Amino acid sequence: MVENSNVKTLIWDRKTLKLIDQRKLPFQKVYVECSTFEQVGAAIKDMVVRGAPAIGVTAAYGVALAALQYNNNNDNTDISDFKNYINKSIQFLSSSRPTAVNLFWALDRVKNVLEKHNSISALTEALILEAEKIEKEDVQINYKIGQNALKIFKKEKKLKILTHCNAGALATAGYGTALGVIRSLNSMGLVEKVLVDETRPYLQGARLTAWELEQEKIPYFVITDNMAGYFMSKGEVDVVVVGADRIASNGDAANKIGTFSISVLAKYHKINFYIAAPFSTVDFNTKSGKDIQIEQRPEEEVRQVLGKKIMPDYMPVLNPSFDVTPAKNITSIITEKGVVYPPFKKNLLNTFNSL
Amino acid sequence: MVENSNVKTLIWDRKTLKLIDQRKLPFQKVYVECSTFEQVGAAIKDMVVRGAPAIGVTAAYGVALAALQYNNNNDNTDISDFKNYINKSIQFLSSSRPTAVNLFWALDRVKNVLEKHNSISALTEALILEAEKIEKEDVQINYKIGQNALKIFKKEKKLKILTHCNAGALATAGYGTALGVIRSLNSMGLVEKVLVDETRPYLQGARLTAWELEQEKIPYFVITDNMAGYFMSKGEVDVVVVGADRIASNGDAANKIGTFSISVLAKYHKINFYIAAPFSTVDFNTKSGKDIQIEQRPEEEVRQVLGKKIMPDYMPVLNPSFDVTPAKNITSIITEKGVVYPPFKKNLLNTFNSL
Repeated sequence: MVENSNVKTLIWDRKTLKLIDQRKLPFQKVYVECSTFEQVGAAIKDMVVRGAPAIGVTAAYGVALAALQYNNNNDNTDISDFKNYINKSIQFLSSSRPTAVNLFWALDRVKNVLEKHNSISALTEALILEAEKIEKEDVQINYKIGQNALKIFKKEKKLKILTHCNAGALATAGYGTALGVIRSLNSMGLVEKVLVDETRPYLQGARLTAWELEQEKIPYFVITDNMAGYFMSKGEVDVVVVGADRIASNGDAANKIGTFSISVLAKYHKINFYIAAPFSTVDFNTKSGKDIQIEQRPEEEVRQVLGKKIMPDYMPVLNPSFDVTPAKNITSIITEKGVVYPPFKKNLLNTFNSL
Repeated sequence: MVENSNVKTLIWDRKTLKLIDQRKLPFQKVYVECSTFEQVGAAIKDMVVRGAPAIGVTAAYGVALAALQYNNNNDNTDISDFKNYINKSIQFLSSSRPTAVNLFWALDRVKNVLEKHNSISALTEALILEAEKIEKEDVQINYKIGQNALKIFKKEKKLKILTHCNAGALATAGYGTALGVIRSLNSMGLVEKVLVDETRPYLQGARLTAWELEQEKIPYFVITDNMAGYFMSKGEVDVVVVGADRIASNGDAANKIGTFSISVLAKYHKINFYIAAPFSTVDFNTKSGKDIQIEQRPEEEVRQVLGKKIMPDYMPVLNPSFDVTPAKNITSIITEKGVVYPPFKKNLLNTFNSL
């Protein structure tokens, strides 16, 4: 029931990590094969794989690959040399993208493994197992998020849902967060249709979310990002559900650029605005949205669309990849540990402490 | 001083109307030559020319071409036959696009000419002169709009301005409305920079506005439409200036899709939101925004970007080409007859009656 996709985001065979190249979907289904942590870091940076939870799982496998690399390339059996190598890989992977906290959370988890064993072979096995565990847990977490979402919505009304970017199976190890909520609602017959923001510059909505909805036979329409307000004003949106890359301890949530604008439009139209994310997205070390580093991505991503140049190179562009939705614009945060309501500062902590 | 552009939107030589192909800018500067009203109608429909005032001027020339066509193709000297032909051309041109009122306004002006003369030759000359007059007036009007805008802004502070779509020289017979305001401010040294929404699906911002600003050496950055809220939240927008395709008698204003969302974002951030438009954009026959017909354009425009397919054909998309900004979100409407402040219903009528 949790398995849903005929394309896996990532395939791990204890030798290599194959990542579906999300830059090429839906036109081509090709996998990028990584056998080194350096390749994994590049794949994250270049957005072969994207989506906060998927980045976390991928990075964990990156460290597992680093352990295998060490074993293949070294006769050295010095445990501290091994740990140095692993720490170097963690450092490298953590510099691949700055905004999604799941990357750092997953790398912290595998780092903790380093303290638990004293032989290279035991550590290698433990690092592999931890990455595999993170992957399995992620799918279960997403499924639980979807189930928890059902508590929010009345069962008698089919919903018109707006989503932004891709918080689907492709953004995770499977099932998805925001799209997991939509899958869950759809399984109960509660989805009338989904409006999908195309999500410039990278078109994760048009290419990935639309494609996932198509596979699931969930009714949808793709719109350009600037149409969301129009459809809200026409009564065509009952609810907004999006993912998150990092949630500050006060509930401010970073997500794909454009999410903040949608939250403002939803507030203006009195439409409920939900964040769906694994609880690991909550970063208690980040006080508020102001403290979240917003990644500025290459200009070239704005000047072109899937390789087609839309502006001459001399034209100056800006490319912030995320924005922060303030807690006051968020109706609730749907996590695997339950639905968290405002005041978020108190209730996120309560949820954390209660489990 | 009014002349500003090294590319003319339209070139009329009393035989043909040449329209710069705005679908191909800024990569190619090619003109589409029209010698019949049917070609002019197709050019408007296919967006060779776009922008409410430019559409109005172009349609007027379309009727002038119809008169020339009649003279070239008929030995008939029956005046009522001639008038039927002209009326047929007016009807044809008026069906080219539904939202911009300037189209109907310009066609009404040339239609009125039909009552003023009783010979085919006099009418032909009069129709040509009326179209030429509309073109000349449009440039003067835009210049006046720019001058009137200077009354609004303090002279001591350079402004960070956000604009959407293209309300520039290319959207008019020259100088531009919203971009005319920016040109006017820039001539006084009052522009720090312009943020230009790329304006999907047709990219009028990225392709046309950015290109015009580049020619004028006015500092600018192109952003994707979903970034506007982010930059407002960062204090990077002091003021929003956009054009309009139709303004209802209560001040509700139709403009390119996405404008409404920006007005909501501006309100949220307490940023002034200005409409710049010739007074002919005000349609006193339209009571409110609800009565403005919103053009739904071909799906294919959303599924591709400058000919590059971004989604498979089977994916359903929506393509409303305009939205309506409610009067309450508009700080003031800058026209050639003065700056109109709320309450718009009263003050638009007062402005109309006072002149």
